[in-house]
Amino acid sequence: MPHSSRRDALRTLLRDRELDALLVANPLNVRYLTGFTGSNAALLVRSDGEDGTVFCTDGRYLTQSQRQVPDLERLVDRSCADALARRAARDGLERTGYESHHVTVEGLDRLSAAASGTDLVRAPGLVERLRTVKDDAEVEALRMACAAADRALADLIEHGGLRVGRTEREIARELESRMLDHGAAAPSFETIVAAGPHSAVPHHRPTDAAVCPGDLVKLDFGALVDGYHSDMTRTLVVGRPADWQRELYDLVAASQAAGRAALTAGTRTGAVDAASREVIERAGFGEQFPHGLGHGVGLEIHEAPALSTSGEGMLFAGVAVTVEPGVYLVGRGGVRIEDTLVVRESEPELLTLTTKELVVV
Amino acid sequence: MPHSSRRDALRTLLRDRELDALLVANPLNVRYLTGFTGSNAALLVRSDGEDGTVFCTDGRYLTQSQRQVPDLERLVDRSCADALARRAARDGLERTGYESHHVTVEGLDRLSAAASGTDLVRAPGLVERLRTVKDDAEVEALRMACAAADRALADLIEHGGLRVGRTEREIARELESRMLDHGAAAPSFETIVAAGPHSAVPHHRPTDAAVCPGDLVKLDFGALVDGYHSDMTRTLVVGRPADWQRELYDLVAASQAAGRAALTAGTRTGAVDAASREVIERAGFGEQFPHGLGHGVGLEIHEAPALSTSGEGMLFAGVAVTVEPGVYLVGRGGVRIEDTLVVRESEPELLTLTTKELVVV
Repeated sequence: MPHSSRRDALRTLLRDRELDALLVANPLNVRYLTGFTGSNAALLVRSDGEDGTVFCTDGRYLTQSQRQVPDLERLVDRSCADALARRAARDGLERTGYESHHVTVEGLDRLSAAASGTDLVRAPGLVERLRTVKDDAEVEALRMACAAADRALADLIEHGGLRVGRTEREIARELESRMLDHGAAAPSFETIVAAGPHSAVPHHRPTDAAVCPGDLVKLDFGALVDGYHSDMTRTLVVGRPADWQRELYDLVAASQAAGRAALTAGTRTGAVDAASREVIERAGFGEQFPHGLGHGVGLEIHEAPALSTSGEGMLFAGVAVTVEPGVYLVGRGGVRIEDTLVVRESEPELLTLTTKELVVV
Repeated sequence: MPHSSRRDALRTLLRDRELDALLVANPLNVRYLTGFTGSNAALLVRSDGEDGTVFCTDGRYLTQSQRQVPDLERLVDRSCADALARRAARDGLERTGYESHHVTVEGLDRLSAAASGTDLVRAPGLVERLRTVKDDAEVEALRMACAAADRALADLIEHGGLRVGRTEREIARELESRMLDHGAAAPSFETIVAAGPHSAVPHHRPTDAAVCPGDLVKLDFGALVDGYHSDMTRTLVVGRPADWQRELYDLVAASQAAGRAALTAGTRTGAVDAASREVIERAGFGEQFPHGLGHGVGLEIHEAPALSTSGEGMLFAGVAVTVEPGVYLVGRGGVRIEDTLVVRESEPELLTLTTKELVVV
């Protein structure tokens, strides 16, 4: 059971901090630790084991939670976190951690009132730290999410979806629709389709502008499968690529390959960014690469770790990240190439399998 | 300019509380007060006027914010709220309110460190209170959002989208796609399509179950237009309605009409719930109506005020709410009928215009 293993891993962190329990209030963290997908829940994880570890949701989710969380004691209460704080006090816990990076100032008042008798101790980011390293079930979900995006793009190209005269908005809708065809519950974020000069805008929103002959078209998109997000960017050329487009593409592809090559367990995140960035800087385009190299991806589309110039953290096997350098020439066009990968001891595992050769449609 | 009027209205609340300023950190509240639609921003609203009222966003949004917020002083900083807290201290403000219902415990540490010199005072929910009463620009956005949903449903029915053999998932996708055709930026929440016995589950997720002859089909859906959400439920019958279906439908329709009739300025929210609920209770189905009557709707799909049995708040002209009673007969089927409306002095303004007669397809 991956969820009980995750709770066990959390217990180690709790004992290190001499906490008797952690009150988990962030719904994504509750999902990670229990598999529960409803919108209102909290979890009290006891450091000494599953006994006394209590899941809470409200009446709307009783049936669903019995199915998804059959193995934990269950409380039913609308104010889940408050009910579990009361429970911690009733059970005589002395030091109960809470997610101080998630609980609001007003929320802490309510928790404190409910928990009189137990010390509420700040414990920010513990579950998020566990979440950076993906277990097999998570990698499988990420793999399916990446496959849905890969297949959607293949379908789009095969059916002539990227042709002169189509608008960015039409292409984005078709790409999103095809991801649903391949099992996505939803797009994992607002799809970016940026044609011609728009491709030089890093986070362009699709417009009614139509694709013109010779345009670079940048597609940044992902699929949500079982709660996990994929993230991929490909930049194509519609028609015959000009020399500058091919050169720009080759540069970004080389930078992206260098970033992937540097992505191994034991490396600092900043070093991965540097390996990729160096290729672009050497070519004189450092200023035209104005963002970090990548980010963690999982239950959130952006999560820890960031791969950026100032990154000090160490990579571990199982960390899932994007590698996405880009060069943007204002008024002309830009190229970004992005994969989702899992860090391993040696070579990273590539989850987005669409070719990174320059595709001409 | 609606945004500057909204800031003026906020200033009245600030002066009532003897605050020199409010540090607005909730992005939806920033959007409400400025029109800015990016993902990272904060706003410092001075109680004494627009001078010294400062908007902050990060470098990615510089161009966009110049277009959307031309009328306010601008700071560019990644940590928007912290930067504005520093600014409040620098400007010698003595009492600066902050959104303690939104700022986390860790976030307050950072604000306090940045703001040394100004007193940070809890000021929860001030902008949310203003947001309950919609101005003309907001009602217009809600109207367009409701129209997109109305038209999508009309198209779906006209093109035979609700026929025997189609799955709930297929119907949901078509409905969502047709909302985009009619100008929605996205569905305003995950569309509910529930056929046959599934219609008795209040928040059913679409499955691969197919529509059968004689099924009740419950559709709960909405469109997002200019940041505003619509919310509508209709329940139809595919084929010839059975007597029990027609009786159930008529009961819920009568309850919904009673709720709408009670919806006037000056009424307590609990009284509106009671007026609608009484019809269902008198018929002996009180237990089968297990949720509140409705909720506020606007920049969020669920916002204040709640229309529920325990509601003590007063309704004002301009408050936008849903009215959505339902009766759910487990194993057989359920009916819910929901409109989005705006409270007025006398009769409410109906924004979802699809008929509430029983539609048979």
